[in-house]
Amino acid sequence: MGYRILETDSIPAYLRERGHWDDAGEIRVREVSDGNMNRVFLAASVDGTRSLAVKQALPWVRVAGPSWPMSPERADAEARAYEQVARVAPDKIPAIHGYDGENHALVMEDMSDLEVLRTVLNEGASYGPDTSVRIGEFVAQLAFATSDFGMESADRKALVAASVSPELCKITEDVVLSEPYVEHEHNHWHPDLSDLAAELRADTRLRTEVADLRHLFMTSAQALLHGDLHTGSVMVGEREGTPVVRVFDPEFSFTGPIGFDLGLYWANTLVSAERARALGTLTDHADQLGLSWRAFEAQFRRLWPTRVDTFFDDAYLDRFLRRVWTESLGFAGAEIVRRVIGFAHLTDLTTLPDPVPASRRSLLLGRELIVRRAELASPEAVRALT
Amino acid sequence: MGYRILETDSIPAYLRERGHWDDAGEIRVREVSDGNMNRVFLAASVDGTRSLAVKQALPWVRVAGPSWPMSPERADAEARAYEQVARVAPDKIPAIHGYDGENHALVMEDMSDLEVLRTVLNEGASYGPDTSVRIGEFVAQLAFATSDFGMESADRKALVAASVSPELCKITEDVVLSEPYVEHEHNHWHPDLSDLAAELRADTRLRTEVADLRHLFMTSAQALLHGDLHTGSVMVGEREGTPVVRVFDPEFSFTGPIGFDLGLYWANTLVSAERARALGTLTDHADQLGLSWRAFEAQFRRLWPTRVDTFFDDAYLDRFLRRVWTESLGFAGAEIVRRVIGFAHLTDLTTLPDPVPASRRSLLLGRELIVRRAELASPEAVRALT
Repeated sequence: MGYRILETDSIPAYLRERGHWDDAGEIRVREVSDGNMNRVFLAASVDGTRSLAVKQALPWVRVAGPSWPMSPERADAEARAYEQVARVAPDKIPAIHGYDGENHALVMEDMSDLEVLRTVLNEGASYGPDTSVRIGEFVAQLAFATSDFGMESADRKALVAASVSPELCKITEDVVLSEPYVEHEHNHWHPDLSDLAAELRADTRLRTEVADLRHLFMTSAQALLHGDLHTGSVMVGEREGTPVVRVFDPEFSFTGPIGFDLGLYWANTLVSAERARALGTLTDHADQLGLSWRAFEAQFRRLWPTRVDTFFDDAYLDRFLRRVWTESLGFAGAEIVRRVIGFAHLTDLTTLPDPVPASRRSLLLGRELIVRRAELASPEAVRALT
Repeated sequence: MGYRILETDSIPAYLRERGHWDDAGEIRVREVSDGNMNRVFLAASVDGTRSLAVKQALPWVRVAGPSWPMSPERADAEARAYEQVARVAPDKIPAIHGYDGENHALVMEDMSDLEVLRTVLNEGASYGPDTSVRIGEFVAQLAFATSDFGMESADRKALVAASVSPELCKITEDVVLSEPYVEHEHNHWHPDLSDLAAELRADTRLRTEVADLRHLFMTSAQALLHGDLHTGSVMVGEREGTPVVRVFDPEFSFTGPIGFDLGLYWANTLVSAERARALGTLTDHADQLGLSWRAFEAQFRRLWPTRVDTFFDDAYLDRFLRRVWTESLGFAGAEIVRRVIGFAHLTDLTTLPDPVPASRRSLLLGRELIVRRAELASPEAVRALT
């Protein structure tokens, strides 16, 4: 029957066809598309006792329209990532009720009672004690399970092959890991940042370090990543008195360097701290890098005795984690820089009354994280930079 | 029609069917299978003016028989590697006339006028000025063309996915990069090496370094490799007065760390030098690491201006080559160790009147290359170890 674009009107029949909804009552549907790429619908029974979300990848970038084509197969990557996480950390992602590869549509848990972490933070909230711990654990659980420590060699190679994602990786390779350091039409910035943007473009040491991170991103097939783990890819809230953290939108998923997931999250927490500092509301924002790192490390070490390949010894684990730490810092730096002078900026900064001081501090911090990543030995050393 | 095992008798009809031989004259065929894995036939016209080789992968390891099954798809990897090399260095591999994926059979140049490099060396010859230079160039040409420097990002990812090779990589992961450092039934050695073998197994620093190399082998998808580039995978000779060097048998090909190809070759040259030293015939053997490295580096630098991705700058190239150098030394060390106390030993050593002194020197050199690879800055520094 082939791919068809789902609309608000066609969702009820679609859900019934696919076996997700068997009672005969009315289904109310509204479109709640929010991200740049895809459409999302919420379907609910009239009495509100039942609801589902349907997310469909269009054959283009949603906000741009058909003039920016993009293969809807990105939803396959998303479904694959959810499938891997569901094996090891089902509590940290939305429940997935089914994936329809023909229409590139996921039917999943309605999370409309939760809020996007970035939104909550921008509204002045703190992170609280759980969020970054859960994120650190999430990265460790997904990474361990899909690394050569958690997965048999042959299964791993099949996963590497299945998870290549040329189009979406290219976006990261370009937008995150090169454009901000050269002249490019995608780049833009507040006029009062022009001097710093020019300095970064002229910084040959920085360029070489970013090239190193870029090549690592392109070649280091350590584990399946979320691939876009910023604070806009995390939902938080409470259900029955218990804090809930859900990571979503893993459509940039591929097999890459573990530090890329940690680094993206750290960058976004560090920028949130710059926002909070600028507003005089800084509470626990600057603790999040340390919290998530320690949770990542503790979880990875907890899983280590279950590794399928015991040739990797404890001394190697120490070295491996040290390397993940260092690479994470580099990717964090690159994510900060691109979010200030690259293609897609952060509302954390753009909605500040005066975005310039926090943006300047962020840019300089990003540069330090990239060029000094090998000498920054601990979360405390990073904190001393801010 | 499905896979069928070719025999001496069926080769003439097979070559005609596949369009490789259109004259009606008699074709004489003999089996010349030599490696462990596959069958090779030579087909020649009675007057000797025309000849071809046919290499077929059986669904098992040839020398072991059906009790050791092995997917014949390894021949796909071989054909893929030849195809990539043919684009950039056709003079350094046998001419490939066709690959029959259904029967996992390659029809290729008859190289029976050439000799296997290891055989020539074991018979007392020197390397001569060309061999290692050609090998260094070969590695650079294949590696550059199939790296993110020589290939567009999306094509690269397709190649990474197509070239995963679980079965054959697993052999290397086990036989080269772990078994020699633990108790394993595959391991064996001359009784006078027992003390050293035990020392290496008890060496925790060495174990951690090998784990590091092993994980690199499993995760670092830098470029398409030959995957088994020892001196038994190189043919040498002369045609019409010109030296000829042909690399063959790339069935272990996959996308991995470039240093693995260089390291394997270096290990085999270093062991050949230990043989020559033991016999008092050492001539140019110890120069080959330096010759092949310099040829590799020069060729890679020659290709650098043609890179498809100019974000990678010259300073990054220096760093990248330094890393390849260091990793190559580590892989060289691991290859030496496994060839003395692991599963498959080298005739370079086993055919010596007294293999013990050269084997001991080789083992100690292998260990040094692994644990000190980061501080050995040049071919001269390596030579000083021997």
